[in-house]
Amino acid sequence: MVNIINGSVLAKKIRGQVAEDIGRLKKERGVSPKLCVVLVGDDPASQIYVRNKEKACAEVGIESEICRLPASIDEKNLINIVKKLNSDANIHGILVQLPLPDTISAINVLNEIAEVKDVDGLHPINMGKLLKGESPLFLPCTAEGIIELILSTGTEIRGKEAVVVGRSNIVGKPVALMLLQRHATVTICHSRTRDLGAVTKRANILVASVGSAGIVHGEMVKDGAIVIDVGMNRVAGKLTGDVDFESASEKAAYITPVPGGVGPMTIAMLMKNGYLAAKRAA
Amino acid sequence: MVNIINGSVLAKKIRGQVAEDIGRLKKERGVSPKLCVVLVGDDPASQIYVRNKEKACAEVGIESEICRLPASIDEKNLINIVKKLNSDANIHGILVQLPLPDTISAINVLNEIAEVKDVDGLHPINMGKLLKGESPLFLPCTAEGIIELILSTGTEIRGKEAVVVGRSNIVGKPVALMLLQRHATVTICHSRTRDLGAVTKRANILVASVGSAGIVHGEMVKDGAIVIDVGMNRVAGKLTGDVDFESASEKAAYITPVPGGVGPMTIAMLMKNGYLAAKRAA
Repeated sequence: MVNIINGSVLAKKIRGQVAEDIGRLKKERGVSPKLCVVLVGDDPASQIYVRNKEKACAEVGIESEICRLPASIDEKNLINIVKKLNSDANIHGILVQLPLPDTISAINVLNEIAEVKDVDGLHPINMGKLLKGESPLFLPCTAEGIIELILSTGTEIRGKEAVVVGRSNIVGKPVALMLLQRHATVTICHSRTRDLGAVTKRANILVASVGSAGIVHGEMVKDGAIVIDVGMNRVAGKLTGDVDFESASEKAAYITPVPGGVGPMTIAMLMKNGYLAAKRAA
Repeated sequence: MVNIINGSVLAKKIRGQVAEDIGRLKKERGVSPKLCVVLVGDDPASQIYVRNKEKACAEVGIESEICRLPASIDEKNLINIVKKLNSDANIHGILVQLPLPDTISAINVLNEIAEVKDVDGLHPINMGKLLKGESPLFLPCTAEGIIELILSTGTEIRGKEAVVVGRSNIVGKPVALMLLQRHATVTICHSRTRDLGAVTKRANILVASVGSAGIVHGEMVKDGAIVIDVGMNRVAGKLTGDVDFESASEKAAYITPVPGGVGPMTIAMLMKNGYLAAKRAA
């Protein structure tokens, strides 16, 4: 019988803890955490994401400011704005909402964010420290959320075979490193992997993060595996994961649903990073 | 019949190319590459490594300076020396020879080396860019040397199963990322891996980098694999790899010997990085 890992409940618990920590920080140190979200242009999906972040911030007691900029802004001016936010002592964390307009290099802009304000944990200096095991200031939110979901099952990661499908900078690569650091034997698969099913079937811990609806089905899952579904695919107006939930549930011991699995964890970890940024600045 | 990959010959060819490039750089731009090796204390092995680097530099036309410091130096003073070297326009690359005395944090010192002078390619900012696929200024020398050895066989990396045994910052993790970037399906194993042989036997490309003499023997090697042996273990006064050469040769299509495999490539790639550092500064 499969156990469904309830990401919404775990995320709520984490946000509750963060809210409590923030309350203490305000009371004892007089510091009120503040994030600034830089939003360029009027991409409708970005508008929704930013609104969700604003809401989540408000709930845990983080002040948020949206810096809205026209799609016509050039890279140099955008970088100058990031630099200004870096030196603004009232702002503890900076988020640049992606995608940026085609005329702007996202890499150039994101790499300007100060290490201490990189609450997304995606700056090369924080990613480099993650790679080297040198305690980065922030961990990438989704990857950290996935580790929390796995730990919540009570399963020991050490010595397990973990397979990560997908090699993105935001999820696949950082979660692979975090599993490696916790002593799993880690395999990273991707679109060029031959016989994906044979590889995923080795996994005691399987993380699917490719953005392809239902690509991982039951036959590809090992009996008793933990299956973490990072996919957020819209199919016929419905949100669907990368895992075929029904068939995978017949094999897995634990599985995350979509929605209500990884999604809520990402934002909870972002709130935690916002708190950490403010605490360090206090 | 196994093919032995001759690292000495390939390294010599690369050093020859680097010497030629440096000759052109001197002639056309008037820039003479210079590396500074910081050597703290009098560890005998370090003395030998540093002497080898000096010799290799001289051969390709890189000027080298050894900054010898007493074991009694403290972290703050050592960091100040690194900072001075960072701002010295005549020095293009900085190497801090490890190990450092126990009283000094190697991380703190190495992380002070300027990104543009990090010829070892091990600074978190360069490692972070490697992780993110953002063109680091320098790649870690041994890992890059391993990729060159694999490419020299004419084998396509894309789509292959690569298994890396060992997860060091210098070799295991960067080479895994470089194989991933070239579209291999990559597994990283280590001391906590259960049934190591079952995992290594999946490998079309097997990189052994654990520092345990002969840990990988023939039964653990897939028929027709490429086997890269990074081990440099001293057993009864003799240099021995992590691979049992004789039994592995009965299975592998290609194998590197120890000595004469990976070792010479590390120093060749370091020379290449020294050239790159000077060229960028020109």
